[in-house]
Amino acid sequence: MLYLIGLGLSYESDITVRGLETVKKCKRVYLEAYTSILMAADQASLEKFYGREIILADRELVEIGSDDILAGAEEDDIAFLVVGDPFGATTHTDLVIRARELGIKVETIHNASVMNAVGACGLQLYQFGQTISLVFFTDSWKPDSFYNKIMENRKIGLHTLILLDIKVKEQSIENMARGRLIYEPPRYMDIATAASQLIEIEDIRKEQAYTENTPCVAVSRLGSPTQAFKAATLKELTEYDSGEPLHTLVMLGRQVHDLELEYLYQFVQDKAKFKAFVEQDQEFFKPPPYVPPVEELDLDDD
Amino acid sequence: MLYLIGLGLSYESDITVRGLETVKKCKRVYLEAYTSILMAADQASLEKFYGREIILADRELVEIGSDDILAGAEEDDIAFLVVGDPFGATTHTDLVIRARELGIKVETIHNASVMNAVGACGLQLYQFGQTISLVFFTDSWKPDSFYNKIMENRKIGLHTLILLDIKVKEQSIENMARGRLIYEPPRYMDIATAASQLIEIEDIRKEQAYTENTPCVAVSRLGSPTQAFKAATLKELTEYDSGEPLHTLVMLGRQVHDLELEYLYQFVQDKAKFKAFVEQDQEFFKPPPYVPPVEELDLDDD
Repeated sequence: MLYLIGLGLSYESDITVRGLETVKKCKRVYLEAYTSILMAADQASLEKFYGREIILADRELVEIGSDDILAGAEEDDIAFLVVGDPFGATTHTDLVIRARELGIKVETIHNASVMNAVGACGLQLYQFGQTISLVFFTDSWKPDSFYNKIMENRKIGLHTLILLDIKVKEQSIENMARGRLIYEPPRYMDIATAASQLIEIEDIRKEQAYTENTPCVAVSRLGSPTQAFKAATLKELTEYDSGEPLHTLVMLGRQVHDLELEYLYQFVQDKAKFKAFVEQDQEFFKPPPYVPPVEELDLDDD
Repeated sequence: MLYLIGLGLSYESDITVRGLETVKKCKRVYLEAYTSILMAADQASLEKFYGREIILADRELVEIGSDDILAGAEEDDIAFLVVGDPFGATTHTDLVIRARELGIKVETIHNASVMNAVGACGLQLYQFGQTISLVFFTDSWKPDSFYNKIMENRKIGLHTLILLDIKVKEQSIENMARGRLIYEPPRYMDIATAASQLIEIEDIRKEQAYTENTPCVAVSRLGSPTQAFKAATLKELTEYDSGEPLHTLVMLGRQVHDLELEYLYQFVQDKAKFKAFVEQDQEFFKPPPYVPPVEELDLDDD
């Protein structure tokens, strides 16, 4: 049996009781280690907590070596641990499909992921549109396909969850070219970088999918002991020191309920000012006012 | 301290290790018991698992008697347990706001909810639009505000998570009128009812937000031992026996990736037929084909 087990967001003890019982009985335990990190735990602390050795699974192993992970899983129990939920932002459907091809049963033990826990910022999950990802720009590579998606969400008034780039075990172009297996230190996009990149693309596209005054919520270290929320405009967030990773950003849509706004006030410096920015932003994509049908008038005088 | 603790989807042991440790140390333990149920557990089994007495919190207590729940929480630890995640489909932001007004600290221990675990059906979470709720229709009350939201989602190609009505501790109109505190047996909307109601509204509105041939995924007892998925058209699902509750329905959007479709095939009876329905449905809301700009021709002969 292959068990896909979500680890939740931060602590070793964020695993579910059922998840922990399952890890303890598995013959091999893999940890998917390239798309996210547990903020208040590491490999050593997890191994101690589980009483089991953990095999770190990098992208290469998962995408090319999945048969190694699945070896013997027809008879033995194998655990594949994923930070958050196995079907969260990064899904592992290809591993599941491969397992089923090999006749291996699969069971999922779910957990919280940023995709649902982000509701802790006070914005209602059912008012979110599609989720987008923002990657680190370089001088020559500034992918902006997210821009149309934000536009689509905001046109219908919805909030947008913006997942920020994580670079783990990346090679520099030089090291890659020379075939040197030297990896760069991990990089996690912070809020100020994300806000700056968003403004940079708006300055290029100029279609007003959003403006530098669009209100957002910066979500830092969600579910960890130092979790922090900050509600401010994009421009204000370019100056925000968001601290240690991980970070996520939510851009508000026009449909902001009073209860959502009330909840956000605890994360702002100046309520009245924030409210004014929200109201100003709500002017974008506003549906045209209702005009009652009128009887047709004959304006010709002849 | 007020602890909001998610219980996950099904088993007693779906609570996180940290959640369980917290419940055990709390002075009073409330279970929010009116918006969902744990499918493989009940009050008695939870009390045994926690070694603690549980106070069932109905809507009245949570919405009107929240100060009773919060009594003493400045000094004592109080647990408020929620099936799924505390910030999932039903949020408890008003309880949090009230706690903060009273100077009571709040900590959330997240868990899986249908809002993220639905990814287990193989459709990518980041391709979902806004979530809608479908309530039981009566002869005189068929609220259809969800229809425009499905239309908005599908216009931009997104999938729609459709949460199905749960009626717990409801009074009949007669008993309510006579002031008799007699409650109807709980009711949980099944897939066939949901599919029929959706078709009923399309038949009235006729704006083709979807058709009876629109492909959907029926998600039954998500995360429980008898979890089941069924991919079929709305019309086919009107005949589907989805079994015990709880159920959720996902309506596909036009943007179906190959990997999503490949995953769904395990839940269909006839791959080729299902694929044909998906392709037929993708014709709706199709963007106009790209027309390259042409040089202006002078078609006048004079």
